[in-house]
Amino acid sequence: MLLLIPGPVTTRPEVRAAAAASDWAPWDASFRPLYRAVRDRIAAIAGNVLDTHAVLPLQGCGHFAVEAAIRTFLPHDGKLLIPLTGSYAERMARLAREAGRAVATMPVCGTTPIAPAAVGAALEADPAVTHLGLVYSETSSGVVHDPVAIGAVARAAGRRVILDAVSAFGALPLDLARHPETDAAVFTANKCLEGLPGLAFTIARKDALLEAAPGRAGSWSFDLRDVFDTGERDNWGSFRFTPPPHVLAALRVALDLHAAEGGAPARLVRYRANARTLHDGMRAIGLSPCLAAEVQGPIVVNIAAPGDPRWSLSGFVEALKARGFLISNFYNTEKPSFRVGCIGAVAPADMHRFVDAVDATLHALDIRKRTPAG
Amino acid sequence: MLLLIPGPVTTRPEVRAAAAASDWAPWDASFRPLYRAVRDRIAAIAGNVLDTHAVLPLQGCGHFAVEAAIRTFLPHDGKLLIPLTGSYAERMARLAREAGRAVATMPVCGTTPIAPAAVGAALEADPAVTHLGLVYSETSSGVVHDPVAIGAVARAAGRRVILDAVSAFGALPLDLARHPETDAAVFTANKCLEGLPGLAFTIARKDALLEAAPGRAGSWSFDLRDVFDTGERDNWGSFRFTPPPHVLAALRVALDLHAAEGGAPARLVRYRANARTLHDGMRAIGLSPCLAAEVQGPIVVNIAAPGDPRWSLSGFVEALKARGFLISNFYNTEKPSFRVGCIGAVAPADMHRFVDAVDATLHALDIRKRTPAG
Repeated sequence: MLLLIPGPVTTRPEVRAAAAASDWAPWDASFRPLYRAVRDRIAAIAGNVLDTHAVLPLQGCGHFAVEAAIRTFLPHDGKLLIPLTGSYAERMARLAREAGRAVATMPVCGTTPIAPAAVGAALEADPAVTHLGLVYSETSSGVVHDPVAIGAVARAAGRRVILDAVSAFGALPLDLARHPETDAAVFTANKCLEGLPGLAFTIARKDALLEAAPGRAGSWSFDLRDVFDTGERDNWGSFRFTPPPHVLAALRVALDLHAAEGGAPARLVRYRANARTLHDGMRAIGLSPCLAAEVQGPIVVNIAAPGDPRWSLSGFVEALKARGFLISNFYNTEKPSFRVGCIGAVAPADMHRFVDAVDATLHALDIRKRTPAG
Repeated sequence: MLLLIPGPVTTRPEVRAAAAASDWAPWDASFRPLYRAVRDRIAAIAGNVLDTHAVLPLQGCGHFAVEAAIRTFLPHDGKLLIPLTGSYAERMARLAREAGRAVATMPVCGTTPIAPAAVGAALEADPAVTHLGLVYSETSSGVVHDPVAIGAVARAAGRRVILDAVSAFGALPLDLARHPETDAAVFTANKCLEGLPGLAFTIARKDALLEAAPGRAGSWSFDLRDVFDTGERDNWGSFRFTPPPHVLAALRVALDLHAAEGGAPARLVRYRANARTLHDGMRAIGLSPCLAAEVQGPIVVNIAAPGDPRWSLSGFVEALKARGFLISNFYNTEKPSFRVGCIGAVAPADMHRFVDAVDATLHALDIRKRTPAG
């Protein structure tokens, strides 16, 4: 079964095998090189930033790390401006609000990249805003936003940035040396790094960490300053609380494979080829991708549901499973669609097979009208 | 290498193999039976309490679930009384304080079980206390406390209990039907259940969950009421955020093995035999366990460091590794000691081999005086 969802992704068998190879004692000296190897690979992907930045691991999922970054870096009297790019921006807003932080949201068009000037205008209009919360790759829409251009606007306006890079890190470009305005970039093991779920990371500026007083997070579990202090004290060999070492062992292998492939640039080439193969293939069999090719990001492609009365997303998903492909059984677009992830251990040849499987499935389900309703 | 630490534990190869078997789409229908199978096994271990209680999964580690339980069940004007049994009680106090909750601590003797009457007196002395935070098995000391007797005292005093059962659940008895005073019991996959780290659980009373207003937690990530609402809505087939499905698949196998062994009672018999073999064996080779046999719990045994000037814990730990045994490289007792976990996929025969390895290691390190210093 090939997972074509935008994470957790299809992993390579050697990544999963590393998880099963042995048990680990997370406070033993023999565990420490494992974490340090992962840290070094991650810092290299982010632009070799170990002098200025710390790689902070957190048990769990991406939402936990987003909440931790907000709690740690947004002062209690700060305010977070979030351009509402889609579901993940909405989730960042909810995480911040429930943590008791002030949030302003900014409506944006969900189907095109954010206009940097609009962010600049919003920052100018609300002097209380201290931080911008930006989703790099909005998984719900498939649109990639531009942290370089938007970061420059925030920098010019004297504001800080918290970057949700969850479905971007490891494929889309990110050179944190070019982002002095960005306190923290957040991501997980199980998206473009092609590891297993269970670990999230924040790469944070050390100067911002030192400004974030211990305890400001209002949560010991989510206090990234405390993660930082523990790591510095123990020379980045340990966690504060029990980590998932099997997931970490799998990530080390996944990061070795990432480097062997040619790092993030090579991975982006492969994901772009996946997305293009899919986008073109869907059009070739009469379906309509939701986004124009020029704004279609390489992580996830939404395709408009066929306007045929026999269409049912759940029936389609189950029928595709019988052909060996698993796609999402929900959609985040305004109009009905189905979504297909282009990340993970998949290649354009898999996407060609998938296009054929979609075509055959629609035939088998007797779905004749492939263009959207209306 | 056999891990003899009190978690993460040595797991069986078939448990780890289950983690590596496949990838999972956590929102797909085919994932749901996996979580439901785990939930049903857990509810059975806790006394078949699915009518009255909910099994609430949380990504990450035990500390996260302890914080989540405190945030969810302790009202903002509540107060948590924690008997200071050792490191894990101290950690519970810190998690509560940093979450902004009022905490009172109660000094207790760290080397004997808590006297229930002392808890009763402390509750009577501080009417502001609404909840008692109790560590069932204090991993730092090896002492097991009595949630039945202490729970009865709390119940009589009209107080609620949050039970840290992290290193107890799955081996030490816990029949939540007998604990109407207990809002929540917290544990993880990687202690007595012998699964992999990466998942924590809270079993909570449904009536207490319904009293805990959504948002009271002050953290969306740690709001167990929201975990409950999501689970109920989706018929307990899904998580709110990306779970670690490989860890969950491993836990399902671990729970099958737990049931096949005879459940918690059989596991307790094995762990007790492990601890007794270790305790007796250490005495037989001239070492001194820190606790008397009658208060020694079955989870972890601390042994006083030999009073020989050549003793070094790190040297001892490294030398034991060369013989295939990994123990903790730190101690939590007042005086120097070494600690050995008795849980995980280990049996008394392993403990006999371990005793022989300790004896041989001390000989090889030329440590002649085996009784404690002084």
